Amino acid sequence: MNYFEKSLIEHKKYNWKLETISKVPLENKDDLSTYYSPWVAEPCREIARDKSKVYDYTLKANTVAVISDGTAVLGLWDIGPEAGLPVMEWKCVLFKKFAWINAFPIVLNTKDTEEIIRTIKNIAPTFGWINLEDISAPRCFEIEERLKNELDIPVMHDDQHGTAIVTLAWIINGLKITGKKKEEVKVVVNWVWAAWVAITKLLLLYGIKDIVMVDSVWTIHPGRKDLNPVKEMLTNITNTACLLDPSSDSCIIGGLDTAVAGRDIFIWVSAPWVLTPEMVASMNKDPMIFAMANPTPEIMPDIAKAAWAKIIATGRSDFPNQLNNVLVFPWVFKWALKNWVKKITDEMKLRAAENLANAVKNPNPDKIIPSPFEDWIADLVAEAIK
Amino acid sequence: MNYFEKSLIEHKKYNWKLETISKVPLENKDDLSTYYSPWVAEPCREIARDKSKVYDYTLKANTVAVISDGTAVLGLWDIGPEAGLPVMEWKCVLFKKFAWINAFPIVLNTKDTEEIIRTIKNIAPTFGWINLEDISAPRCFEIEERLKNELDIPVMHDDQHGTAIVTLAWIINGLKITGKKKEEVKVVVNWVWAAWVAITKLLLLYGIKDIVMVDSVWTIHPGRKDLNPVKEMLTNITNTACLLDPSSDSCIIGGLDTAVAGRDIFIWVSAPWVLTPEMVASMNKDPMIFAMANPTPEIMPDIAKAAWAKIIATGRSDFPNQLNNVLVFPWVFKWALKNWVKKITDEMKLRAAENLANAVKNPNPDKIIPSPFEDWIADLVAEAIK
Repeated sequence: MNYFEKSLIEHKKYNWKLETISKVPLENKDDLSTYYSPWVAEPCREIARDKSKVYDYTLKANTVAVISDGTAVLGLWDIGPEAGLPVMEWKCVLFKKFAWINAFPIVLNTKDTEEIIRTIKNIAPTFGWINLEDISAPRCFEIEERLKNELDIPVMHDDQHGTAIVTLAWIINGLKITGKKKEEVKVVVNWVWAAWVAITKLLLLYGIKDIVMVDSVWTIHPGRKDLNPVKEMLTNITNTACLLDPSSDSCIIGGLDTAVAGRDIFIWVSAPWVLTPEMVASMNKDPMIFAMANPTPEIMPDIAKAAWAKIIATGRSDFPNQLNNVLVFPWVFKWALKNWVKKITDEMKLRAAENLANAVKNPNPDKIIPSPFEDWIADLVAEAIK
Repeated sequence: MNYFEKSLIEHKKYNWKLETISKVPLENKDDLSTYYSPWVAEPCREIARDKSKVYDYTLKANTVAVISDGTAVLGLWDIGPEAGLPVMEWKCVLFKKFAWINAFPIVLNTKDTEEIIRTIKNIAPTFGWINLEDISAPRCFEIEERLKNELDIPVMHDDQHGTAIVTLAWIINGLKITGKKKEEVKVVVNWVWAAWVAITKLLLLYGIKDIVMVDSVWTIHPGRKDLNPVKEMLTNITNTACLLDPSSDSCIIGGLDTAVAGRDIFIWVSAPWVLTPEMVASMNKDPMIFAMANPTPEIMPDIAKAAWAKIIATGRSDFPNQLNNVLVFPWVFKWALKNWVKKITDEMKLRAAENLANAVKNPNPDKIIPSPFEDWIADLVAEAIK
């Protein structure tokens, strides 16, 4: 039985995986009268008098909503809310397993930006945080920004920020392994996924200087006339040689193979199989490759290694070196709530990545960052958010 | 310590009561790869191909949403979504305890009918059923009706239908105890709550002939010019003597005391303390009184009994004879789902009430219908829905 089949059988066997239970006894009429009719009226009255007491008396104190419209689910993209539900449901399981936060999935039957914002605002009173998930770019940027401003609970689009933190943690230790310097490495970041802007900004903040970005068409540079506002912004912080002199060798103008040649680090969240062994071979010595498309990476680890990659990570749990934000999101959310942090700042993300990287004393190509099953990770991330 | 204080202490001690857990093991990277990245992609793909498979692979198979806008919470009325949350959260606990259904509360930050309908439609893909709760009349009628037509999952407003079933069960056995006949008893039903129309229709279907309804102003009769469409409809099925001859003695025109005098059954879901001992004394011999306002009933049981009530029920778990739809809703929903029943018909409700009533072999004023803690109730209700 292959993994495809096993997954279907297991998912079907358990059908619903997430269940709701009560941590409070309910054995007799006395319990019923205390927690339900009539005396549930007392906490209701307290909250009606002072809305902030909803945290004292209800599940809002420890419940996150994992919300998606199903438009950017794994590398399968726009498969609709129902088809995205298995991912959201399991993400809720991870929240509980790793951070002891209750989480509930909400998949939305609309792709309209305004409608999504309105719906989330309407259901927000139940929740202590909002985790946006697998919403396609560029809508995800506006949705996150608006909700951060318009809601009084923390909102985070994990695809952007969780991914950025864990990617930077990898790069920090990858630099140690290859002996390269952050000021000197050349990075290429590929494609339309929500995470690419967040990753790029965090790498620049960390001190990496030379980043080139590629969309589905070409490298991002100021000479292009087809850029949306987000990409326009990116021409100011990446491929910056083009700002000074578009004709210089340092200004990278071209397609995928041009962008990859001579680079050290390769961050790829795009589509299966786009990365060829020839492209890997055209990179600088000891390439670091992050092939994060799921379920099928841009290049298989063994092929990449054969083609001279030093470090290769994928998003998959079944290959070594999983680069997955499960290492980050449970704890970021937990500590954001515990400490009433409404906005996860870039500085917090930077510290979280550094802490995660430093947790591995002797990083090597087979052990770069901790596993999510190592319990003390919570403290590392928490430390960064505090 | 009184019950008020105990409730606050207990609710605060447990803070969040409802938790989400996984019934599936998650111990290692292997589990992570099967249920999450990368192989969660397989059920996603299956559902993308055939949306109905969402029931095979996700929590939709066994999860109900308990949705309220907080406008008709207990007898506290419009206290807002946050203040309504303790009731909804505990209702979810009851779903799990009694019917082994997972349930999650959603409280809505809007009172607009269209906005509520749109929001519920937007979040519906996650859920197997929708339980509307504590939404004030008359909006609740339109919201339920529209959602029933526009969604492909069962929708039920429990305040209407659960309450109607359990009330009828009570009346069936109340008639046995008092030796009265359904064709002859005179009933008065009071006020604006969502349940009153559903109760009245079900009583008529059962065979009760003489019902008078009272709103906050006066008895409902065709001579009034201030009736909304729902009340207009009610003039055709209640207080029908007025249709034939408004000047006859049988046409009841007047306030609360006029409506109550000479009646046998008194169904009251309104406000604390409205029912005086004098009113009870003005009723026919052996009055049956359903004083369902929560937390404070329309009249306290001891006062009602002293004033010659034969049977008195309240909505409270801490008095004898609780009349609460917890006896009904968990099983109605369970069987509606298991049997793909999209609409709970009047006939199903009638059968459910008769089954519940017949479950008590020798009803007497202290034991009229079963307790929710008697396990075999599930079968009685299930039988009715099948």
